[in-house]
Order: sequence, then C-alpha cells, then structure tokens
Amino acid sequence: MPVVAAYAAPSEGAPLAPTTIERREPGPHDVVIDIAFAGICHSDIHTVRGDWGPQRYPLAPGHEIAGVVAAVGSEVTRFAVGDRVGVGCLVNSCRECDACLRGEEQYCTGGSVGTYGSIDRDGTVTQGGYSRQVVVTEDFVLRIPDAIPLDRAAPLLCAGITTYSPLRHWKVGPGTRVAVIGLGGLGHMAVQIAHALGAEVTVLSQSLRKKDEGIRLGADRYLATSDPETFSGNRRAFDLILNTVSAPLPLDDYLRLLDTNGTLVCVGAPPEPMSVSINQLLGYRRSLAGSAIGGIAETQEMLDFCAEHGLAAEIELIDAAGINDAYERVLASDVRFRFVIDAATI
Amino acid sequence: MPVVAAYAAPSEGAPLAPTTIERREPGPHDVVIDIAFAGICHSDIHTVRGDWGPQRYPLAPGHEIAGVVAAVGSEVTRFAVGDRVGVGCLVNSCRECDACLRGEEQYCTGGSVGTYGSIDRDGTVTQGGYSRQVVVTEDFVLRIPDAIPLDRAAPLLCAGITTYSPLRHWKVGPGTRVAVIGLGGLGHMAVQIAHALGAEVTVLSQSLRKKDEGIRLGADRYLATSDPETFSGNRRAFDLILNTVSAPLPLDDYLRLLDTNGTLVCVGAPPEPMSVSINQLLGYRRSLAGSAIGGIAETQEMLDFCAEHGLAAEIELIDAAGINDAYERVLASDVRFRFVIDAATI
Repeated sequence: MPVVAAYAAPSEGAPLAPTTIERREPGPHDVVIDIAFAGICHSDIHTVRGDWGPQRYPLAPGHEIAGVVAAVGSEVTRFAVGDRVGVGCLVNSCRECDACLRGEEQYCTGGSVGTYGSIDRDGTVTQGGYSRQVVVTEDFVLRIPDAIPLDRAAPLLCAGITTYSPLRHWKVGPGTRVAVIGLGGLGHMAVQIAHALGAEVTVLSQSLRKKDEGIRLGADRYLATSDPETFSGNRRAFDLILNTVSAPLPLDDYLRLLDTNGTLVCVGAPPEPMSVSINQLLGYRRSLAGSAIGGIAETQEMLDFCAEHGLAAEIELIDAAGINDAYERVLASDVRFRFVIDAATI
Repeated sequence: MPVVAAYAAPSEGAPLAPTTIERREPGPHDVVIDIAFAGICHSDIHTVRGDWGPQRYPLAPGHEIAGVVAAVGSEVTRFAVGDRVGVGCLVNSCRECDACLRGEEQYCTGGSVGTYGSIDRDGTVTQGGYSRQVVVTEDFVLRIPDAIPLDRAAPLLCAGITTYSPLRHWKVGPGTRVAVIGLGGLGHMAVQIAHALGAEVTVLSQSLRKKDEGIRLGADRYLATSDPETFSGNRRAFDLILNTVSAPLPLDDYLRLLDTNGTLVCVGAPPEPMSVSINQLLGYRRSLAGSAIGGIAETQEMLDFCAEHGLAAEIELIDAAGINDAYERVLASDVRFRFVIDAATI
C-alpha cells in the first residue's frame, strides 16, 4: 500500500499533526492524484473535533482537493497523467439507486462515500486531502479548467458546488432576488455565482465589516442583520434566501423577508433543532429547505461555469504547519474567504 | 341596509346564538345569495373563540357557503338569478398586486378580505355564512356545478380548495406517492382529490379507527401514527406529505418519511412555533412548506374537477340550533367528515 505524508488529528479534539497515511493500491479504474492544494472547510473542523459524532482516528480531513494526475489505472479513459483535476466531498456511491442514476450522488440512498472519515465500498476508511496524494475512482474525479488557478479552484469543490447546486435547483437567473446569509467561504462563492447567473444579490451579514468586499464580489446590496431595519424594511423582498451559516438563526425573521413562493435554503445545519412558525410558511406559500453539496456532473458544470465567468475562490494560502492556527481563525470568522493549504508543505 | 337572520358569537368565548346582521345594499357588481348551506370549519371555532387574536363581536362565522343567486347588480355579467353558487374564504382583495394579477388572491399583498371578521375595502366588517343571505362582489362568487349537491359542495369552498391547491402546486399526479396526515374535514378531501389525480395515497392517522372510510375514499394505505413501525418502516416513502392537522407534530419524524426532493406541506398552523432539524431537510433536499386556501380561479377549477370526478364532501347535516354541540364534536374530532348547517333553520 502506498504510504503518503499527511496532516491528521490523532484523536478527538487534538490538534492536527504531521503523520503518514496509507492509500490503496490503484485499481484499473483509479486515478492517482498528486495533491497541490487542499481547502479548509468549516466541516473539517466539526468532524475532526467530533462535533458530528465519533470518528475513527487518526483522521486526515480535507474535501476541497486540487492537483495533477500522477498515474491512471488500465481502464481509465477520461484522465491522463498531467491533467489538472479536483476531488470534492464524495469519492464513491452505490451507482445503482435512483439518486445515483439521476446524477445526484450526494443523495445516494445506497450509501455514498465521503472523502474522509467514511467507510469506502471496499471496507477501508477514507482519508482526506490534507495529504500529498490521493487515489480516487475515475467517476469521482473532476476536471479543473485551465482558466482557474489550482489553489483558487480547490474551495470550489465544496464551497462552490454547495452554493451552485441550490442556486440552480431553485432556478436563479435574471430577475431573481437572492439574499445570501453570511459572507464566509460559502457565502463569497454564492454571491459570485448568483451575480453571474444574473440575479439581484443582497448579502445579509452580522455587520457591515465586509461590505466593500461583498460589493466587489457582485452583491447589489449589503445589509447588517444587527440592524432591525434590515428585517422591518425588507419584508417579502427576496425570492430565494441562501443560508450559508451553520449557527442557529431566528428563522421566522428571515422567512418574513421571502416573497410569495419564496424559499429559504439552508446549506449548513446546526446540531440543535431550530424553531419555525408554520404561519410564516403558510401565509405566502413559503418553503424552508435544505440542500447538500451537489452531484459529480453538476460539480463539473459548476467548474466550467466558474471558468467561463472568471470566478474562483478568494483564498489565504498557508503552509501545513499553520493548519491549527487557521482553524481558530475560521471559528472566529477571520478569513477572507477560504484558507487553502499548500500541499507541498505537508 | 338589508337585515338578515344569522347565528353569531355575541362575545369572545360565548356560545353562538340566533341574531340578525346587516348586509350592505347591493352595488352594481354585487351578487345577492340566498344561503342554503354553510359548512363548519375548524377555523370558525378558533376565530370566534379569539384563539387567533381579538375579534369584533357579534361575529357570524362561516366561509363554506353554498346557495342560490337571489338578485344581481346592474353590472353583473356572469351570474343570474337562480344560479347555484358558492363563496369561500375570500370576498375581496386589492386586485392590483402581483398575487392578484396572477390569480392568487389568497396571497394578496394589498389586503385580501376574509369572508368574516375582516374589514372590507368599504370599511365595513364582514360577516360569514351562518346566515340566510350574503352579498358578495361578482368576482369572488364561484359557480357550483350541477353534479354536486349544494350541501356537499359547501365544504369544498374551504376544505376542498385548501387541499386541492397544494396538490396541484406540487404537481401531484400518476406516480406521486402522497401521504395525508389526518382524516378530518380537510384530510378526507385531500384523499379523494389526490386519488382522483392519480397519486398513490396513504393516510397517516392517529389510529386505525377510520381506516375503512379512508380506503373507501381512495386511500391505498392507512397507517396509524401511534405505531412506531409507521415511521421506521416508511423512510423516504413519500414525495409529498400534506399535513391537515393544526396541532403541533414531531415534524422531524414526518420529514424522514420524505424521499429526495420531497415536501411536507402544512395547510393548518398551530399557534406555537414547531421544532425542526435542518439536517432532516439538508440530507435529501427536503422542504417544509405552507399553503393557504387557493385563488378564485383555482377554486372554480377545483369545483369543476370535483364535479368531473364525482367528488364531494361527506357531511353531517345539522340544524342551526346544533351549532354549539357540533363545535364540541369538531374539537373532539368526532365528525364524518364535515358538519354543514341547513341555513333554512337559521
């Protein structure tokens, strides 16, 4: 089994540390990828700290992977050595259920396989992108267009698709009034993509601290949720609200901002249940919905869309030794807008 | 002003009693309707008892009205004396907002006017169908097809359209797996309509007490929510769940029954907020939604659909003197399936 350098949490709550992990021997359908960059997603932190349930350790997180193909199996047809590629949140699925057949592997009912901390269909435990190399079956490898630098492409594999998928599913386009709650890693992609889709975009953020950046990224309006006027002055002002914040929010206050037939889509979930008044849904046929990442085909579509429109993540590139400090800054919302690890430093 | 016999609540919480109410002088666009039957809707009880906020008394409820045209104003073009007609939950709206222009007067943002207890656009307070006669502007009068007896048509004006509208909005048809929570006045119409639309229909009721009736009305399956197997054995079994129960429910348990892209639609709202786990929405892109009655054009469409498919409400016809007893039985869920008042006894 190939052994590669990685950064992993040795146990629940422990800081990440340099180590080695095993990758499987590449099979005929596998692509071996030299990882160049790995984004730091908020969910990496939740997972390694055990916030979402017990994990198997050591655990190397990372599901925003960009790199270059180092080798391909004998049956691989779509990738060749040297190709610029990415891997997102999924590395396998059952490929037989209705969701898989529709190309919505993220909703696989036969058991999709997460990029780290999941049991793959061969029984091994997956390890993520905070490492030098990864082996992934061809069907779950994405092509990164030349127009997107690899470091700025990495976060698209989670933050990009997680926001692109609901914006497309709820048919955002010219004339749609979209609000994005939170201008973090997900939010800054949501603003760019919604703007590129032709929507009128408003950021709803705790303060006006990042207003200039929000406007530069494509927002038409930037409102502080700490200001009561934001809520009283924008009743029924939006068709779609994309909630990129995982912390609990006063949902009713946001539902009132939706016009008739509007939807509030959550792409992150706090562990605690939230409170909602059915009357806020009923009065104007509003919906409260959730959306999880996206399928493989849609992820490729998102990458191509970003290339076509000149979009990419805005990042702070760090060495692997800075991962634990970066985690603290992510938790403090102190990042513009995504930390990306230079895998050469792992 | 015409004075007509009615049953009204003299004050909050007081039993309904015979009285008289004033109707406006019919204007050129008005239709004067001799009321033959008025259904008793659960919301009548909530409203007259002040559960949904303070009211003006005396208050005659009733928004499931069926009768015959007694007179028409000089400008009325679509109705003539002797026509069989109905009036539902709305008697006016702004007619200018986007919702009104789309024919969704129930979501009017300029101020729709409820059939009772609302301030009409001329400043008068509306009084409902527990009376001998009502005056309604032509645009809010429905035509009741000959195939539907007037007494069994009355409940269609609220219970019928409240269930028809979401079933149509969420595109229920052959192949759709629909669950209906509750087999009361709304539920028994939802089952009939969903079945007529070609869906596979399951009733989710507290017990199997009304199972035979549910199956007779068109349900394919009838499951008791008191049985844990109903929840453990039907994960992702439905595309649409229509919740006709106004009491608080464990929403997460029901959300787990939805397949990918499924929606749980509430058509009644408990006054208390409900708890929902966003994870239940996110995992399979589920939605929690609300829907309120329906527009005038859609209500006519529903009446024509019921006539075409031989559907109508199943009712217990009562004299007006029995209204207060009927209220107690509605609160005890002891009615099959809607009380209808014979207006000749008012």
